[in-house]
Amino acid sequence: MSEPLRLGIAGLGTVGVGVVRILRRQAALLEARTGRTLTISAVSARSRDKDRGVTLSGYAWEDDPVALATRDDVDVFVELMGGEDGPAREATLAALRAGKHVVTANKAMLAMHGQDIAELAEAQGVSLRFEAAVAGGIPVIKALTEGLAGNEITRVMGVMNGSCNYILTRMESAGLTYEEVFAEADGLGYLEADPQLDVGGIDAAHKLALLSSIAFGTKPDFAGIELEGIERVSIEDIRAAADMGFRIKLLGVTQKTGRGLEQRMMPCLVPATSPLGQLEGGTNMVVIEGDAVEQVVLRGPGAGEGPTASAVLGDICDIARGLRLPVFGQPANTLEPAQRAQSVRPAPYYLRMGLQDKPGALAKVAAALGEAGISIDRMRQYEHSAAPDTAPVLIVTHACTRGDLDLALAALPGTGVVATDPVALRIETL
Amino acid sequence: MSEPLRLGIAGLGTVGVGVVRILRRQAALLEARTGRTLTISAVSARSRDKDRGVTLSGYAWEDDPVALATRDDVDVFVELMGGEDGPAREATLAALRAGKHVVTANKAMLAMHGQDIAELAEAQGVSLRFEAAVAGGIPVIKALTEGLAGNEITRVMGVMNGSCNYILTRMESAGLTYEEVFAEADGLGYLEADPQLDVGGIDAAHKLALLSSIAFGTKPDFAGIELEGIERVSIEDIRAAADMGFRIKLLGVTQKTGRGLEQRMMPCLVPATSPLGQLEGGTNMVVIEGDAVEQVVLRGPGAGEGPTASAVLGDICDIARGLRLPVFGQPANTLEPAQRAQSVRPAPYYLRMGLQDKPGALAKVAAALGEAGISIDRMRQYEHSAAPDTAPVLIVTHACTRGDLDLALAALPGTGVVATDPVALRIETL
Repeated sequence: MSEPLRLGIAGLGTVGVGVVRILRRQAALLEARTGRTLTISAVSARSRDKDRGVTLSGYAWEDDPVALATRDDVDVFVELMGGEDGPAREATLAALRAGKHVVTANKAMLAMHGQDIAELAEAQGVSLRFEAAVAGGIPVIKALTEGLAGNEITRVMGVMNGSCNYILTRMESAGLTYEEVFAEADGLGYLEADPQLDVGGIDAAHKLALLSSIAFGTKPDFAGIELEGIERVSIEDIRAAADMGFRIKLLGVTQKTGRGLEQRMMPCLVPATSPLGQLEGGTNMVVIEGDAVEQVVLRGPGAGEGPTASAVLGDICDIARGLRLPVFGQPANTLEPAQRAQSVRPAPYYLRMGLQDKPGALAKVAAALGEAGISIDRMRQYEHSAAPDTAPVLIVTHACTRGDLDLALAALPGTGVVATDPVALRIETL
Repeated sequence: MSEPLRLGIAGLGTVGVGVVRILRRQAALLEARTGRTLTISAVSARSRDKDRGVTLSGYAWEDDPVALATRDDVDVFVELMGGEDGPAREATLAALRAGKHVVTANKAMLAMHGQDIAELAEAQGVSLRFEAAVAGGIPVIKALTEGLAGNEITRVMGVMNGSCNYILTRMESAGLTYEEVFAEADGLGYLEADPQLDVGGIDAAHKLALLSSIAFGTKPDFAGIELEGIERVSIEDIRAAADMGFRIKLLGVTQKTGRGLEQRMMPCLVPATSPLGQLEGGTNMVVIEGDAVEQVVLRGPGAGEGPTASAVLGDICDIARGLRLPVFGQPANTLEPAQRAQSVRPAPYYLRMGLQDKPGALAKVAAALGEAGISIDRMRQYEHSAAPDTAPVLIVTHACTRGDLDLALAALPGTGVVATDPVALRIETL
């Protein structure tokens, strides 16, 4: 039996408390699996007095997470405070400088500062692990970094923000508007303190940036992600998409192309019967494609006390068992700058617009699209809606580039028949 | 940069050749990821002269896999010969005794002799890894052993034989009999040399035995698996199941119960719209449930050159990176004997039988079931079939134990109205 592994846990919100609970409840099992006892030396959080439903009197208390991170009786600093900068980053850097391993769930910090943090960890010869930062309970970082290490990865895509998926599926099932479901989700505590992190797609894009680095050996490049949130997804689009056999998902895609790395996080249409299309509520799904393995799909809970704590514990067990890996799967100082190649790959697009009720209106739109090189796969015109003299029209194009589509969209006002700004959403057929 | 990791590969069938191809094609990538060059020192197979579509002249040749396994210039013995006993086992044991790490895809050998092999590996302080033995390209051994190590696992279930799933889905889609599709699959090379390993459920049960050991810390107990193949699944049952919203899958389940470990591998009905129900062709799916993570679902190709070689490479990269784990996730000498508890958990059952066309026949069957404590959820009587004076009847029971069901089935002949032996299949609702 080796020495105990001593933990210092900073951040005692849902996940931190979940980690404490598992360490107590499963102490014997964890010892059998790692060959070591896992002990908590000290904890830290903003308020010492808050009742968290778990007794903390057996652990030393530190008000300052930096002090916690550098204690002599801490081997692993477990960072569960969150936040891109501030105390989380300070304490993480302090822990690494003091030669401590770090386990973190902090996707924002790693997406923005992961390169420097990884270089420091590797220079110090310690582990930094972040399974809980991406897709909650799904062991996707491990699958990509280790299980599929024999593959040249070609594409990774997924639904990685449970709150957005909850909002989109709830809009469809209850027939509610975005604003109505947003208020509901906020009231239920489903959204981050700054909801823009969720609905703006930022949280999911942080996760995508980390997956890109592992998959393609590039430095995390959050700023290179083409990013669009779900705020503008309307119940009309959800209904129209459903009517044509699609569902709308906040989908992240990172893919190697001949011109560079294409990273996107935006609402897309996916076939309603596909695995991604059938994903309900807060569940996450990640699809990994590699030259040897073809395609592996991982599904599981994207958040919550148990699932996220499960991911943190997996990392702690790895460290207890002596696993030492570069943070992003290969040494950080060998990661290359991501060459940005936005929207290189063509795809079909879904277009929705209102046309003035004039003879030949549809033909004018079709002609304008055709002149821009966009050909039409399917087109539907609906009954006149509430707006008089305006007919809603849905178009599914054949595959085209976003650049060509934008040219076509720019030409539409010139037809004189388009009554409402067109909505354009990419269709991913997996 | 550490020393090169030198491999000896025994078995140059589809998977062995796939491993050689990846090692060549991705040499630079594998070196970036593991920090070492991965080299092949020697290979071994039954026939030296066979054209395998890959040049082997750069590697030493050994006719005898034991000689290969114990060469001084081999650090890792890669066993891809297969077979429960014989050369595969001899060479594996010889490699371990000589202090070599072992990577194997051999589920039969490990299901039957895994306990002894694991104890030897651990006594020798070397790694034995077997990701490719279970569910092809899906990194499920890693997910269960490492990623979910913080969980008390409660249940693992899955479809883990692609050939059986191909046969069952093809019977349904083409309306063919078992015998017709079996012949077709055999002609396409989809079946093992001994097809009974596939269609008898043995191959899938080998895999289940290994998952059980990792999940529950028990010695592999293949003999304790309640086992039934797909040979008796008829096109009539597939159609009748579909008619009631189900599909038939060869489903493995291993689960902790109050009385011990319940391990089953048998054809079951699952809801047609569930993830398991929608699994087509040779794809595998494994569902893992744990106290913290709730449920994780992994899907991917269950066989084939690329996917299986991907799994072998994942293990090789782990060894190159220095990962050292007990074979089944905790030391083999701490694994407990599996306490067998077959069919403890109640479930609904699907019954199909032919009834004689007599007044009151259905009532007599219902009464016989009722007397045995089996209540009926749904019942359907079909038009008279080809057999005159016999009416096919389908019954879905409420949840009952297999023991109670067997009592009921034993009582049915006494009703004097049952014309054909009843078919009984368990329904798993996930």
